[in-house]
Amino acid sequence: MGVAVEKLDIKKYLREKQKIVVQALDELMLPAEGVFADHIRAMRYSLFAGGKRVRPILCLAAGTAVSDDGGVEQSLLPVACALECIHTYSLIHDDLPAMDNDDLRRGNPTCHKKFGEAEAILAGDGLLTYAFDLLSNPAHGRGLPDTSRLAIIHTIARAAGSPGMVGGQALDMAAEGRKIEFDHLRTIHRSKTGALITASVLAGALGGGADESQLAAMRRFGDSVGLAFQIVDDLLDVISTTEELGKPAGSDEAQHKATYPAFFGVENTRQLAEQAVAESLAALERFDHRADPLRALARYIVDRTR
Amino acid sequence: MGVAVEKLDIKKYLREKQKIVVQALDELMLPAEGVFADHIRAMRYSLFAGGKRVRPILCLAAGTAVSDDGGVEQSLLPVACALECIHTYSLIHDDLPAMDNDDLRRGNPTCHKKFGEAEAILAGDGLLTYAFDLLSNPAHGRGLPDTSRLAIIHTIARAAGSPGMVGGQALDMAAEGRKIEFDHLRTIHRSKTGALITASVLAGALGGGADESQLAAMRRFGDSVGLAFQIVDDLLDVISTTEELGKPAGSDEAQHKATYPAFFGVENTRQLAEQAVAESLAALERFDHRADPLRALARYIVDRTR
Repeated sequence: MGVAVEKLDIKKYLREKQKIVVQALDELMLPAEGVFADHIRAMRYSLFAGGKRVRPILCLAAGTAVSDDGGVEQSLLPVACALECIHTYSLIHDDLPAMDNDDLRRGNPTCHKKFGEAEAILAGDGLLTYAFDLLSNPAHGRGLPDTSRLAIIHTIARAAGSPGMVGGQALDMAAEGRKIEFDHLRTIHRSKTGALITASVLAGALGGGADESQLAAMRRFGDSVGLAFQIVDDLLDVISTTEELGKPAGSDEAQHKATYPAFFGVENTRQLAEQAVAESLAALERFDHRADPLRALARYIVDRTR
Repeated sequence: MGVAVEKLDIKKYLREKQKIVVQALDELMLPAEGVFADHIRAMRYSLFAGGKRVRPILCLAAGTAVSDDGGVEQSLLPVACALECIHTYSLIHDDLPAMDNDDLRRGNPTCHKKFGEAEAILAGDGLLTYAFDLLSNPAHGRGLPDTSRLAIIHTIARAAGSPGMVGGQALDMAAEGRKIEFDHLRTIHRSKTGALITASVLAGALGGGADESQLAAMRRFGDSVGLAFQIVDDLLDVISTTEELGKPAGSDEAQHKATYPAFFGVENTRQLAEQAVAESLAALERFDHRADPLRALARYIVDRTR
C-alpha cells in the first residue's frame, strides 16, 4: 500500500479531477440566461470562484475505491456536483453580515459584497435546493439504482442539515466570543465540517455499490479525514500569510475563536493532524489499490501544512 | 359533482386535515433537545406559528383523488410535512431584514425578531434541508415505490429552487420600487407562489400513482389554483383589516408593490379569481367524487374574499 501511495502523483490527480468536476458543474448548473439570469449569475459566481473541490473529489475517489465499474465516476458526477453546490451555499451564508461578516473569499469579494445581501441569501438557497434537484433528476439517473440514489440523498440531507452542517454553524455562531470546552469544539467541528466530508465519502461509496462493512470503513475514513481537514484548517490560519490564504490570516485568533492551536499549541496540533490521517489510512486497510487515490488525498491534507 | 361539493363541509375538512398535518409535523420534526436544541427551537417556532397548511392539504387531497388505496394519505404525510417545511423556510427568509424586513408574521414576531438574524437564516436553511431528509428517509418509505419518491423529490426541488420559488423571490426583490409590466408580475407569481402549489398537487398525485394524463390534469389544476390563491392574497391585502390578516393591511400599496388590484381594480380582480377557480375545476372534470376535497379547496380559496 505504501508504495502505491508514493506512485500516485496527488497534485496531478487533483488537477485532473478538479478539471472534471468544474466542467461537470458548468454543464449541470443552470445557465445564467432567461428571466432568472441575474439570480443564477450570483450562484455561478460563487460556484466558480475557485476552491479545491475536496468534497466532490472524495466522492469520486470513494466510488472508485469500491467499484469495478469503470463508469462509476461518470455516474457519480451529478452527486459530486451536488456536494459542491451544498458546500458553496454554506460558504455564501456563512460569509453574510449576520454571520461571519466576511468581505473576501479566496481573494475575491464574497457573494453579498458583489451582489447584495438579499441576492446572496437567495443564491445560497438556490444552490442548496439545486443540489437535491441534481441528486433526483431522472436525466442523471443512469448507472445508479433508485435505492442507492435515495440512500445518497438521505445521507447528504442528514449531514448537511440541522443534525449536521447547519446545526454546527448554529453552534459556532452561539460560541462566538465565549470560552468553550474542547469537547464542544469537537462537536462543532464534527457537525459543521466533518459531517459533509463523511457524507461525501459515503455518497461515493453508496454509488459504487459498497456493502455494509465497506460503508462502515468508509464512515471511519471520512470521520478521520474530516477531523484532519479541520485541524489543518485551524493550523493554516495560524501559520500562513494572508496572501496564501486568500482571506485575512490569523482571523481566528483576532476573533478569539476556539481552535486546535489555541488549545494545544502549534506543534501538538500538527501531531494531532498526523494522527487523524493515520487513523483514516487504517480505516482503508482492507481495501485494495483502487483506494489509493483516497489514501493519497488523506496524506495530502496534512501535507498542506508543510 | 356540484352536489358532492356542496355536501363536503370544507371548514370541517380543513380543520381535520390541519390537525393531522400539525400532529405529523410534531412527530416527524426533530425534537428541540440535545446539542442543537436552540437551533431546532427556532425552526419549530416558525413551523408551529399557525398557518393554513394549504400545501400539505393539497398534497393529501391530490393523492386521495387518484388512489383507491385508503392508506395513501398516511404514506403521503412525510411528503406533506416536507412541503410545509419548505413553505415555512421561505417565509423565514422572505421576512429577513435584507429581504422584506417584516417584524410580524401571523400576529407573532418573525423568526429573526425572536431569535436573531443569524439563527433565522440557519432555521430556514435547516428547514429546507430537512424537507429533503424527510422525503428520502428510509423510515418513511413505506407505501411509496422508490421511483415515485425520486419523482416527488425532483418535482419539489425544481419548484422550490431557482427555476421556481427562489428565482421568483429574486425577481420580486429586483422589482421592488420599480414599475413592472403585468406579464412580469405573472412570471413572479407563477415562480414565487405558483410553482410550489403546483408541486404540492403533483407530489400528492405521484404518491397516489397517477398516470401521465392524470398528472397533466393535476398540473393544470395546480397552476389555476395557485393563480387564484395569489390573486386572492393580493385582494385580501386591499380589502382586509390588519387584525384579520395578522400583518399590516395595505402594506403592498404602501410599498408600491405591483398587484392584481393595482392593475385591474378590486372588482375585476375578484372576477379574475373566480375565473381561475373555474379553470381549476374544469381541469378536474374527468375525476370522480374522490377529487371532491380538491374541488372544495379550490372554491374555498376564492370564498375567502367574501
